[in-house]
Amino acid sequence: MNELTLETIRAAHARIKPYIHRTPVLSSSILNRKVGAELFFKCENMQKVGAFKARGACNAVMSLTDEQMKRGVVTHSSGNHGAALAWASGLRGVKATIVVPENAPRPKKFAIEAYGARIVYCAANVAAREAAVDKLIAEEELELVHPFNDYRVMNGQGTAAMELLEEVPDLDIVMSPLGGGGLLSGTSVAAKGIKPGIKVVGGEPAGADDGFRSYYSGVRITDAVPNTICDGLRTGLGDKTFPMIQQNVDGIALASEENVVKAMRMTWELLKIVCETSCCPPLGAILEGNLDKYDFKGKRVGIILTGGNVDMDKLPWQN
Amino acid sequence: MNELTLETIRAAHARIKPYIHRTPVLSSSILNRKVGAELFFKCENMQKVGAFKARGACNAVMSLTDEQMKRGVVTHSSGNHGAALAWASGLRGVKATIVVPENAPRPKKFAIEAYGARIVYCAANVAAREAAVDKLIAEEELELVHPFNDYRVMNGQGTAAMELLEEVPDLDIVMSPLGGGGLLSGTSVAAKGIKPGIKVVGGEPAGADDGFRSYYSGVRITDAVPNTICDGLRTGLGDKTFPMIQQNVDGIALASEENVVKAMRMTWELLKIVCETSCCPPLGAILEGNLDKYDFKGKRVGIILTGGNVDMDKLPWQN
Repeated sequence: MNELTLETIRAAHARIKPYIHRTPVLSSSILNRKVGAELFFKCENMQKVGAFKARGACNAVMSLTDEQMKRGVVTHSSGNHGAALAWASGLRGVKATIVVPENAPRPKKFAIEAYGARIVYCAANVAAREAAVDKLIAEEELELVHPFNDYRVMNGQGTAAMELLEEVPDLDIVMSPLGGGGLLSGTSVAAKGIKPGIKVVGGEPAGADDGFRSYYSGVRITDAVPNTICDGLRTGLGDKTFPMIQQNVDGIALASEENVVKAMRMTWELLKIVCETSCCPPLGAILEGNLDKYDFKGKRVGIILTGGNVDMDKLPWQN
Repeated sequence: MNELTLETIRAAHARIKPYIHRTPVLSSSILNRKVGAELFFKCENMQKVGAFKARGACNAVMSLTDEQMKRGVVTHSSGNHGAALAWASGLRGVKATIVVPENAPRPKKFAIEAYGARIVYCAANVAAREAAVDKLIAEEELELVHPFNDYRVMNGQGTAAMELLEEVPDLDIVMSPLGGGGLLSGTSVAAKGIKPGIKVVGGEPAGADDGFRSYYSGVRITDAVPNTICDGLRTGLGDKTFPMIQQNVDGIALASEENVVKAMRMTWELLKIVCETSCCPPLGAILEGNLDKYDFKGKRVGIILTGGNVDMDKLPWQN
């Protein structure tokens, strides 16, 4: 599977459908009045493992050959993709190894272990992480399932927008957060495939605007130093995700940290749901009035809420 | 409307259906594993005005005669019923007056005013509240819509269990919190009417156990002094709700404050939704192992989550 098209996303959906939740789409009339648009939130915070990452990881695991299955899978992630790959591997009895930095939060490690995966620790920097993964691949012939720069993963992530458009067909715009680009590339191909005239916009925190700068300059930035509360969006684009985003996305809108936190609190207070900081740049960008190329006013906007794994002792509006 | 039967609840549902949300029913496999039962949460925290109270208030307002409509409605509530009556009155252009204690939290007052109702302040005690309401009824001939001791309200509240059983017909037990008894009486009549063998259990905080003591002694306690974090459950039973509960409810289970808070946090963390403390005695009682007359283990249990209006700056697990 080396392509990302509406057909391959549909095939991914058929493959993962028995294992994932069909998550609800929620709206709030009070929120709509506040922002002057009709917003439809696809609640992937309520997905298996609490994040859309279950879709891509599940599609990757369900696509493994028998040979790959025997050897097992590996990835590096202290976040939702690690837990998602651990979960998906468990569904098929595949051995999963997750490379995790030593300083990762304990609840994240517990989640990965609870799903039955092996954890290999590394120092908390990119070089150490890549070295650890490379060593495992060399020594144990494990199959890498990259968090985003992998067609199996990108296709799986595209299934969220597919379901959203099945439920609310007459959207004008679809938005997703932008980190490594797995979700936004899948979303853009699914949405444009289903409804050619639709606009697809990524939401990115201003403190990690490498995607914005890459998109508008045409050159993929790989040396950015992110500084944002959105811990899931601190990665740069991949060489597979960037071209799909260049081809299919209509714009990237930035949100300040302040508006990310404001968007998060509004989502909790008005939709009555728990979502992560990393979900919130799309609504944050709308609040910011950072409209990039076009106007959200009066439009029907679908927003993919990406995850709901939150440390309830440390909420960002409480110091 | 002076009765509460499955037929009158069905009539109430037909009356309010165009105005209320059909709220989702959510589950968590991790939570189910933790408690050893299959739990189905009816998410009235996502209802209009953020609480099931929209159902009863809407049914009352939609049941007003033309004469009553002209005079307007009144209630006393600094909580969700006040906001719900304000909202429902707005739907029909009825003038609503809400008697609110001077010390009520500002966000609650804002909500009532935002829905276009008039606020009349009173001193923060029961006598002052009742005097203020009586004065308004005497002077302005307003129609009282009591928060729970009113058949129109009780019938409206019963529609939540009706929808829950339509969606998950094979429940063994239905639980709701117990405060004044409007929800529990409606729930019990709806559930037993639809599925005669089903058990209906109220969940009450141990710090406001007047419902428990009334139910098991057969004498309605009216002089209790509640001490609980569940601010929506500090009221005693009414003379209309108590007999319905005596006839139709199978037991009242108590939850400690500690288990109420634990249940609330589990609901937020595992279901990814925001709910109030007052929602949590049912799950709290299950956590407590306070099983009253029977066992929840292995059972299919429906739980009505009553509201989602929470002060995000003051969460009960933080100090």
